[in-house]
Amino acid sequence: MEIGPDTSPERLLEVSQELGRRFAPRAAAYDRDGKFPEENFQDLRDAGFLGILVPKDQGGAGASFLVYTKALERLAIGDASTALAFNMHNLAVGPLADPRLATLPGRRGSAIRDFRTWVFKECVAGRKLFASAASEPGIGYRLSKIRTHYTPVEGGFVINGVKSFVSMGRHADYCIVAARSERDVGDVPGTSFLIVERDNPGVRIDDAWDTLGMRATCSNTMHLKDCFVPSQRLYLLEAMVLYNVARETHWYVGSCNGVYLGIATAVLEFVTNYLADRKKAGTEDRLAEDPLIQHRVGKMCTDLEAARTVTYAAAQLVDEAPGSLETNVAIHRAKYMVGVLACEISADAIRLCGGSTIFKSKPLERYYRDAICCSVMPASNDDCLTYVGKAQLGFDVMSPRGSYW
Amino acid sequence: MEIGPDTSPERLLEVSQELGRRFAPRAAAYDRDGKFPEENFQDLRDAGFLGILVPKDQGGAGASFLVYTKALERLAIGDASTALAFNMHNLAVGPLADPRLATLPGRRGSAIRDFRTWVFKECVAGRKLFASAASEPGIGYRLSKIRTHYTPVEGGFVINGVKSFVSMGRHADYCIVAARSERDVGDVPGTSFLIVERDNPGVRIDDAWDTLGMRATCSNTMHLKDCFVPSQRLYLLEAMVLYNVARETHWYVGSCNGVYLGIATAVLEFVTNYLADRKKAGTEDRLAEDPLIQHRVGKMCTDLEAARTVTYAAAQLVDEAPGSLETNVAIHRAKYMVGVLACEISADAIRLCGGSTIFKSKPLERYYRDAICCSVMPASNDDCLTYVGKAQLGFDVMSPRGSYW
Amino acid sequence: MEIGPDTSPERLLEVSQELGRRFAPRAAAYDRDGKFPEENFQDLRDAGFLGILVPKDQGGAGASFLVYTKALERLAIGDASTALAFNMHNLAVGPLADPRLATLPGRRGSAIRDFRTWVFKECVAGRKLFASAASEPGIGYRLSKIRTHYTPVEGGFVINGVKSFVSMGRHADYCIVAARSERDVGDVPGTSFLIVERDNPGVRIDDAWDTLGMRATCSNTMHLKDCFVPSQRLYLLEAMVLYNVARETHWYVGSCNGVYLGIATAVLEFVTNYLADRKKAGTEDRLAEDPLIQHRVGKMCTDLEAARTVTYAAAQLVDEAPGSLETNVAIHRAKYMVGVLACEISADAIRLCGGSTIFKSKPLERYYRDAICCSVMPASNDDCLTYVGKAQLGFDVMSPRGSYW
Amino acid sequence: MEIGPDTSPERLLEVSQELGRRFAPRAAAYDRDGKFPEENFQDLRDAGFLGILVPKDQGGAGASFLVYTKALERLAIGDASTALAFNMHNLAVGPLADPRLATLPGRRGSAIRDFRTWVFKECVAGRKLFASAASEPGIGYRLSKIRTHYTPVEGGFVINGVKSFVSMGRHADYCIVAARSERDVGDVPGTSFLIVERDNPGVRIDDAWDTLGMRATCSNTMHLKDCFVPSQRLYLLEAMVLYNVARETHWYVGSCNGVYLGIATAVLEFVTNYLADRKKAGTEDRLAEDPLIQHRVGKMCTDLEAARTVTYAAAQLVDEAPGSLETNVAIHRAKYMVGVLACEISADAIRLCGGSTIFKSKPLERYYRDAICCSVMPASNDDCLTYVGKAQLGFDVMSPRGSYW
Repeated sequence: MEIGPDTSPERLLEVSQELGRRFAPRAAAYDRDGKFPEENFQDLRDAGFLGILVPKDQGGAGASFLVYTKALERLAIGDASTALAFNMHNLAVGPLADPRLATLPGRRGSAIRDFRTWVFKECVAGRKLFASAASEPGIGYRLSKIRTHYTPVEGGFVINGVKSFVSMGRHADYCIVAARSERDVGDVPGTSFLIVERDNPGVRIDDAWDTLGMRATCSNTMHLKDCFVPSQRLYLLEAMVLYNVARETHWYVGSCNGVYLGIATAVLEFVTNYLADRKKAGTEDRLAEDPLIQHRVGKMCTDLEAARTVTYAAAQLVDEAPGSLETNVAIHRAKYMVGVLACEISADAIRLCGGSTIFKSKPLERYYRDAICCSVMPASNDDCLTYVGKAQLGFDVMSPRGSYW
Repeated sequence: MEIGPDTSPERLLEVSQELGRRFAPRAAAYDRDGKFPEENFQDLRDAGFLGILVPKDQGGAGASFLVYTKALERLAIGDASTALAFNMHNLAVGPLADPRLATLPGRRGSAIRDFRTWVFKECVAGRKLFASAASEPGIGYRLSKIRTHYTPVEGGFVINGVKSFVSMGRHADYCIVAARSERDVGDVPGTSFLIVERDNPGVRIDDAWDTLGMRATCSNTMHLKDCFVPSQRLYLLEAMVLYNVARETHWYVGSCNGVYLGIATAVLEFVTNYLADRKKAGTEDRLAEDPLIQHRVGKMCTDLEAARTVTYAAAQLVDEAPGSLETNVAIHRAKYMVGVLACEISADAIRLCGGSTIFKSKPLERYYRDAICCSVMPASNDDCLTYVGKAQLGFDVMSPRGSYW
Repeated sequence: MEIGPDTSPERLLEVSQELGRRFAPRAAAYDRDGKFPEENFQDLRDAGFLGILVPKDQGGAGASFLVYTKALERLAIGDASTALAFNMHNLAVGPLADPRLATLPGRRGSAIRDFRTWVFKECVAGRKLFASAASEPGIGYRLSKIRTHYTPVEGGFVINGVKSFVSMGRHADYCIVAARSERDVGDVPGTSFLIVERDNPGVRIDDAWDTLGMRATCSNTMHLKDCFVPSQRLYLLEAMVLYNVARETHWYVGSCNGVYLGIATAVLEFVTNYLADRKKAGTEDRLAEDPLIQHRVGKMCTDLEAARTVTYAAAQLVDEAPGSLETNVAIHRAKYMVGVLACEISADAIRLCGGSTIFKSKPLERYYRDAICCSVMPASNDDCLTYVGKAQLGFDVMSPRGSYW
Repeated sequence: MEIGPDTSPERLLEVSQELGRRFAPRAAAYDRDGKFPEENFQDLRDAGFLGILVPKDQGGAGASFLVYTKALERLAIGDASTALAFNMHNLAVGPLADPRLATLPGRRGSAIRDFRTWVFKECVAGRKLFASAASEPGIGYRLSKIRTHYTPVEGGFVINGVKSFVSMGRHADYCIVAARSERDVGDVPGTSFLIVERDNPGVRIDDAWDTLGMRATCSNTMHLKDCFVPSQRLYLLEAMVLYNVARETHWYVGSCNGVYLGIATAVLEFVTNYLADRKKAGTEDRLAEDPLIQHRVGKMCTDLEAARTVTYAAAQLVDEAPGSLETNVAIHRAKYMVGVLACEISADAIRLCGGSTIFKSKPLERYYRDAICCSVMPASNDDCLTYVGKAQLGFDVMSPRGSYW
């Protein structure tokens, strides 16, 4: 059970499903303790999943965005925290998989190729895990406002600042840190990603992560103090992060959609199993015969399939035309729908199945807690709708200026 | 501008769009007077649209269900009544286009082939229009309960009964009438479709159609009194209608989805144009800059694209696996979403654009009136959700018994 | 059946109900033709309703705002257009009923007393009808932006401009016209109300009112060209209209709530009667036994009673503390809820009762068309929520500046 | 700060508010550990709150249902678990406060008077706490189906069975246990309440309560094995419980409304304070100036005030006409609205305030978890709407048969 260049998409999804099934029985304990799911990540490592997005010619499984979305969904059915944290790794790797990066001319092109090769090798051969550190306390995901900054020094850069929501911050081998450059690009704040190693002496992690949901992502706070990073650990081009996030919204906004679809799927599976042969209290009548219950389940299915269909259609657009306006609008639509779905379906399921489902001995209450987290990740429900509306009204939503970042 | 066996799907949609554009300026007058849109149907005739579903080898355009759905949408952007009435024609033709009907063995197979050939020829060469008469007063679309019945006589059948909602009843060349047989199929009421000619002396049309919306469909009431129909005008197999509608829900439930998607699309186009360069009252500020308006437009786009994506995905399933459970569930999901969408988007548009849009000089108020009609056509929003829910809970939804028909 | 100073609130509501019952059978014809409901207004005149808000010591019925709201509701159950048009009369009279206006000192106080006395006498003894002309084409209800203006001349003023949505414009004896003054009040546009007589030669009415709903209000467009108004027909203080509407939102925003509550009540009555003894198609099972139908009816009742309770609570606040912040916020909450309610309940009723209810032979389709009009009257649903939100967040919503007017 | 017969309603609410303020800082710890809030209950004891519903002539504070609802709301703003558990005490006491019970004739009347006097004395003089045990595993709140039963023995009864959701089961001095009688009342299952003392040797508590929300209620599972209860501890009349719950729905369905209103109020207070002087990330612009935020806050306020107004109106009806159909319908409407409100407002608040609010260092995530519990308490949202709908359609909802109990 290991994926690689020869793995078909169908097989990759089978393996994802199998991994999700392994995660499921472990999820409650990790959630309760807010502990990093080491076993799950060991499974992911062993199954070659750290290279899921690495191109096949670099030894990875070369998953398309659509296949990746579906894989994430299957992992999240078992444990959403694991899937969400794992997505942070892929947020670092995914943008590098673009084949156009392999053929850029000149010295820059050569540097980028070297950088990609190094990241891919770390993922595939080294089975190294990457984390991402973008948000900041009091700033959230508004990247154009971050205060963490870096200055060039001999042989590299020195970073100072504080990052929040750093999933797996203490557990990943590397962390991609967004930091403000000293120079801007036109009137857009110059911002770069820099790769910091786990045992960099300038890094300190605060165990602040004690939250409503997604507890096992261990998204703690990272303090960077005079943290040295060598030049070759600059992520792609300098100062261009805001351009990248505005263009490649599928990675920065849409890659987590699979996670929340997975939660919603798990909710519906729970409800369906719960109702399978349950009787109305004290009678021999099947609950599933109740017209109101059938109707509610129909609503859940419809909402789930709508969000799923829209998400897959958006993901397919990513594979066909990454970075196009149509694609980016589709990503925001999907993010909005998934954000609404996951919350509503888990609340409805509790209402439908009743009091026994609020106990921690059942997974439904965890789904309910994890689900709401979608809306606080970029882009928020409102940011998504505003993006779609502005695009429809002819505004330039793909410029970093005036974006919600 | 005529479609036929050589027309590509792309071209077919272009022609549909062009026809819709012709219909648009005529729509208000037909709506006001509740008059049948003769000009539009002449255009449809001239453009070969009466054969849109007739197989290419029979001289038709051979549109797939997906292409047909998109074509209907484009017509409905211009005039929903015309598109909805036109769909009644295709409800008669579409089920015959199934290629499996061309190769049935035996005498029955031969009779079916003759029947198909006749219908197709009437459509293509004869440019004849078919209507459908299924509902009945006090019964609605519950086909298993209809009271119109027929008895076999020398050389054919004699029908007696009353049908309601007979779109184009006075205007179509033929009308497919659902009537109860004297014999049942197991415990399922035997029901057949019989084709009645317009000038059959047993037919009388009451001009009862004076309604909120879809006024130009002229869906009047048809009285059949000792109405003789020759044997060869029996539609496919006798007594099997309830089996057909339960299996081929794409025709009987899902074929009108394109119409209501078209209305929703027209609404969004109206809103977008309305906001294009309008200023806030008495200022130079563009309305489109208003964050609340952007947000609302984003919601409209998202809802529309969700319903559209789900509808197209269901239509594609129809083309790949007609009559399968998965397909039928997808059709009901789509019908529900489109039914909700059309109402909500038109109400929201009135709220957004304000008082000037309730005037009959603008089309928005017509969209609002036409949109609600979706929910009263089979299957109702509630019937759709119940269908989906029952399927999810493992009930047999494809058997005629216990269905909503 | 005539109300006056001695009429108890209970009796007043009985009479209102009786009038509504008389209006009901006439409503369809007035709606169809967009004709002014002369018979209904004759009934209102005969029943002394033109003085419903006139203080008892001036010969009127002296209804409180709560009683008035309930009376309007009962009228609207029968015919919403009549009730809405009638409310325009009361919009003119109501603000004058404030007892504090009777005791203002000085020359101004004396002029105001004379003005009130004249209006009250016209209403009670003269049975004269007042209309209101505030909105303008392209401006809507943003009073601070209106273009109609007046200039002082010998013995009075001369008005020029165009007003839209002038309910009963051709039928009322007087019309209160909002017009811009030459002088402002601080940085607030000076705006006054002036009373124009029906046969003023400077007035021309365009029969533009052909709309989705509220058709019998005949809210046509009024052109005023060098229209002379004598000094004593200035409504209260000069230039203060924006202050008045911002403070007395119960008249300008909340007085129509009763109308839309009435529509919603009529919808629920229709549904309840419709279901009373109807059977499921072709069976002996009562529709009312259907759990989904019971559930939907329960939702309708709940939404209606919620809006009603909130509206009455707001109206009671008006009677206790008119013009207070708490009262004005309550009025906006109620307006929002009623606006949402009327649309949703009428759409749900059509869905619930099915295809037969879209015919003009039943009143439900008219309720559906009338209901949406609530949202385009001041304040829109969005204006209401923004008002409430700003108040909660500590903004000054009662100043004319920055208001939605 | 102690309430009693001389305490005015205003003062009682002030004290409630003060208690709520004391509870607030303690809530997080009790919630985290799922520990019973001993300090809070000591405060309630000391403040005389165990007698809040005891009639003034029996030494209690004699709160009306409306005042009680408001008091509970104020306690719940501080800690919902405490308020909800406290309500269980009052569920036992409240039905006894009905003055009609004081004047019943005969031996039964005398026994009832003795029983009331004993309960009231325990509450007021003894400061004893009562719990309620009605639900059962696999049965939920369907009282007509419970399996716990009792048999008469010398001097009393012996109970056997298992009860779930026994709030404060381990902490209350007495527990009112619903158990099935050997004889029925007509075709209604005979069910009685019996008062069991905490240290009854037949009682065993399982510490099963580890839940999503309302964690500090410690609603553990209670096993009763041959549990003897003396005759005089029978609660009112034997076998009549189903009649009582069907008639006095204000106690069994509506008494917790104040708790969830309190949560919603706390949510809105949190949001308002959060936005008070917060700036948009990296700017000097106040978040509160954002039109989308104002709009959302306006929606929250409107929803909260609607539910509050409806709840208070229902409570007032209880005080005026307890047990009437109108009152019971109003109670179910209120329960539904509060159930929807609490969930939606807390989810919206998280979305509005963003990622920092999912941390356990802030109370919002607890509100979100506590809020959903409303829907799983009797009556569920669906049970409420069905009740209201059936009443509207003329069904007898106040008979125990066919009720949701």
